[in-house]
Amino acid sequence: REDVDCVFLALPHGVAAEFAVPCRKAGKVVIDLSADFRVYDPEVYADFYGAAHPAPELLPDAVYGLPELHRDAIKTAGLIASPGCYPTSIILGLAPALSAGLIDSTTIVANSISGATGAGRKADASLIFPEIDENLRAYGVPKHRHLSEIEQELSLLAKHNVTISFIPHLAPLARGIQTSITAILKGEVDAEQAQQAYADFFAGEPFVLLHGQDSLPATRNVVRTNRIEIAVRVDPRTSRLLVFSVEDNLGKGAATQAVQAMNLRFDFPETEGLPL
Amino acid sequence: REDVDCVFLALPHGVAAEFAVPCRKAGKVVIDLSADFRVYDPEVYADFYGAAHPAPELLPDAVYGLPELHRDAIKTAGLIASPGCYPTSIILGLAPALSAGLIDSTTIVANSISGATGAGRKADASLIFPEIDENLRAYGVPKHRHLSEIEQELSLLAKHNVTISFIPHLAPLARGIQTSITAILKGEVDAEQAQQAYADFFAGEPFVLLHGQDSLPATRNVVRTNRIEIAVRVDPRTSRLLVFSVEDNLGKGAATQAVQAMNLRFDFPETEGLPL
Amino acid sequence: REDVDCVFLALPHGVAAEFAVPCRKAGKVVIDLSADFRVYDPEVYADFYGAAHPAPELLPDAVYGLPELHRDAIKTAGLIASPGCYPTSIILGLAPALSAGLIDSTTIVANSISGATGAGRKADASLIFPEIDENLRAYGVPKHRHLSEIEQELSLLAKHNVTISFIPHLAPLARGIQTSITAILKGEVDAEQAQQAYADFFAGEPFVLLHGQDSLPATRNVVRTNRIEIAVRVDPRTSRLLVFSVEDNLGKGAATQAVQAMNLRFDFPETEGLPL
Amino acid sequence: REDVDCVFLALPHGVAAEFAVPCRKAGKVVIDLSADFRVYDPEVYADFYGAAHPAPELLPDAVYGLPELHRDAIKTAGLIASPGCYPTSIILGLAPALSAGLIDSTTIVANSISGATGAGRKADASLIFPEIDENLRAYGVPKHRHLSEIEQELSLLAKHNVTISFIPHLAPLARGIQTSITAILKGEVDAEQAQQAYADFFAGEPFVLLHGQDSLPATRNVVRTNRIEIAVRVDPRTSRLLVFSVEDNLGKGAATQAVQAMNLRFDFPETEGLPL
Repeated sequence: REDVDCVFLALPHGVAAEFAVPCRKAGKVVIDLSADFRVYDPEVYADFYGAAHPAPELLPDAVYGLPELHRDAIKTAGLIASPGCYPTSIILGLAPALSAGLIDSTTIVANSISGATGAGRKADASLIFPEIDENLRAYGVPKHRHLSEIEQELSLLAKHNVTISFIPHLAPLARGIQTSITAILKGEVDAEQAQQAYADFFAGEPFVLLHGQDSLPATRNVVRTNRIEIAVRVDPRTSRLLVFSVEDNLGKGAATQAVQAMNLRFDFPETEGLPL
Repeated sequence: REDVDCVFLALPHGVAAEFAVPCRKAGKVVIDLSADFRVYDPEVYADFYGAAHPAPELLPDAVYGLPELHRDAIKTAGLIASPGCYPTSIILGLAPALSAGLIDSTTIVANSISGATGAGRKADASLIFPEIDENLRAYGVPKHRHLSEIEQELSLLAKHNVTISFIPHLAPLARGIQTSITAILKGEVDAEQAQQAYADFFAGEPFVLLHGQDSLPATRNVVRTNRIEIAVRVDPRTSRLLVFSVEDNLGKGAATQAVQAMNLRFDFPETEGLPL
Repeated sequence: REDVDCVFLALPHGVAAEFAVPCRKAGKVVIDLSADFRVYDPEVYADFYGAAHPAPELLPDAVYGLPELHRDAIKTAGLIASPGCYPTSIILGLAPALSAGLIDSTTIVANSISGATGAGRKADASLIFPEIDENLRAYGVPKHRHLSEIEQELSLLAKHNVTISFIPHLAPLARGIQTSITAILKGEVDAEQAQQAYADFFAGEPFVLLHGQDSLPATRNVVRTNRIEIAVRVDPRTSRLLVFSVEDNLGKGAATQAVQAMNLRFDFPETEGLPL
Repeated sequence: REDVDCVFLALPHGVAAEFAVPCRKAGKVVIDLSADFRVYDPEVYADFYGAAHPAPELLPDAVYGLPELHRDAIKTAGLIASPGCYPTSIILGLAPALSAGLIDSTTIVANSISGATGAGRKADASLIFPEIDENLRAYGVPKHRHLSEIEQELSLLAKHNVTISFIPHLAPLARGIQTSITAILKGEVDAEQAQQAYADFFAGEPFVLLHGQDSLPATRNVVRTNRIEIAVRVDPRTSRLLVFSVEDNLGKGAATQAVQAMNLRFDFPETEGLPL
């Protein structure tokens, strides 16, 4: 349709690219919620997704759609690859520490716990209520597909290759993802310095709420919002930085983050229509 | 009462010691489910529990009641300090790796997710249904009290001082605890070697179910049992060992583990009365 | 304080009246969320609450704060007795049928299922997560206190004394109440006539969503709103009317309903500040 | 296979009959958990299931497999039609009242709340965790298929045709069904008489636990058992009998009830292998 400026794609990876090609040819801005255009290097995509990239010719157009990292690029992008819940919670959790050089990037361990909406809405016997209720389990280790985009963005922040451990877990709730990250500090860093680095990095960000040293984030406070809440701690016993983040996997972890990108792309106020 | 041979104490720490003293004086075997006699060093106790040890004179009598590590000592102990859910899941998860020297003990990170029964049964506004339902949060960082006993036992296994990162989380289920552990491997270790080390360590253990390389444990399978299920993986990308364990926080993580110790102490078959 | 026009009381019954007296003396409009002023007859109050009414002198001032029934009286009331979740769901569910004379009022049976927030936020061992999770039970039968106000309002609608059966149940969710009502029809009434009677009664009501004959309400759709959703069916096999209603027990069943009454009382638009 | 004496069928209705025919021809005892042989009258089956009965020639062989009602017939039956969770909870809840003539059978209203396992284990988008979690809804009104077998059995008990109102609900738990029943009393009946009628009817039943006048059943106490718990009350305000029953929809409501029937049929002790 000619009067459409922007197309949102909420499709499985592989399928999304098929739809993106004609949309881009017709000059539409595409905001894609699949993984197809999040990884800039098609070889990394092939390694993690087990198939050749379905539309590598579009990759030069694509911007990783995390506003807190790529706000300017999003404003002019033809194709915005909007990130999902695990990457958002881990990348934003580590961005201040890596860009300030606080941590040894070879020691990063991220553990995430996700509610069931993170798996999408599909008729799958492993997703029915009695399978998830009253149950906890890790899955997708040690090489979860999302590591490809997570390590790409962390490497850009650190300005060198970063490889991390990531363990996702499934818990019996519908909406909400909680991530806990540890990494060994480079040299002496105290709680105040760590807190300041995070406060500086996120200054002015409308959708990032940074906790102080006296509280930790809980998922219930971010449900149905586009907010990510983050807390940072220093553990002197182990010389480690601890980072905690929570978000709604259907909010900042998916749908509303894509709307935030659209607002940027089309010069709306960034918070337009989005629950703070 | 004269005809009682064995007393179980399920009391808050501090209070438990008050009851243990007269019981021991009367010659009873005491199985204590509090933290009072789990830490052998009263200074470590004071550091983590913020008060002088309430009955240090009983400590020489006490054995850490984890049958898989201290079976012989339990058989003759006067005071058995039965461990709780977090320590059991972490210590048993790491015991094979540390005793076989597979990992660099300075790089251990343990993340645990617990159901609500882990907090005990008390009238507390933070434990009511609407506070826990549909919510995920980390808490008790960076120096959870149970680290005192965890690091004591890990140090005994490693034969040197071990300090670890431990992050507990609360999730909306009643019973079940899931622990994920990562540590950097010392030298080349492949999946087969790691699996073998764990199989050797737990050979013949009636209450440890070791998964193979094709499945990961889920809490639902251990509810209402005294079983701990463990899986081990090698991540070649990050040269890390990954360990996963699950148990029922009221079973192997508390009540039935204490019964297992009693069986040992009084020469009953170790599995007597306990659900496999 | 002199510059306050309106006081909300969210206190236990008995206590609320103590605070209402001085507020009324000072000329404030009181919106009370307790049961103290919902029952106009102090003898009925004494029968159901087991104590003499704490402030009968205020009863002539009081209006039962259900806007769909008493909108005009609320606009000038000194004391608005805002109803809770069970009464709202049952009274609004039956109001069209009783005022249109569709049913035999001696045959009314109401079954309600409530989430845990219906019990309020208090440190009570019967409300902790493991007591409510994975559990269903009826309670408070056969003479639940709220029957006093429910039967008062139903009697006003029917223009004769109405006595009903009411069975409340507790289910493992935080927010949401679902009510199912049956009653034997007076004479021949078909689905279309029943639907029309309900549509007529609720015409123009901003917070009542009446389902058609092809869907039934579900609590999840009303969480965090001031909406009540209602469906009506005719069962020709048993000559009964069936009514279904859902609401958020903290929304239309409590807090936002009180705000709706305040809007009416102070000439704000009725929907001001309230989520539709 | 020649050495098989008994075949359990856990298949959808319609399909079960296809398998039952050859099994019966080969002389096997069939215990069928579908609805195919629960309704003795093929016309009623056609009315409720929308298709001609798939094997009416087997109906004379079939016994409704509720041991508390048909114990002797089950002992010699060729085909045992094992009932599901809703019918078991309602029929056993009403059996003492109907056989003692306590209630007016035209006034029976049954409301049931079921956990998600009641819907079976299938990949269905309406059964995934986020659809059931934090939600309550009624469904299947006014003519749920199970009414055909419920009314058949109630009519046998009452010795006249009985038609009832039945409203099933779905709640966010995995296992457990709770049923609340009301009916108007015939003449004067007090609590003691009602309690006695229920105690007499269920005397000696190994899997029925009758509560006294001071407690109501909760589903959590019957999970993973073959027990049904029942309580009875008299409401003098409305001259109604109230009955409450709970069971595990996979236990007494399905699998273990079928085993109870097999025990009877093959002269094992009735409680063999079944959790009390």
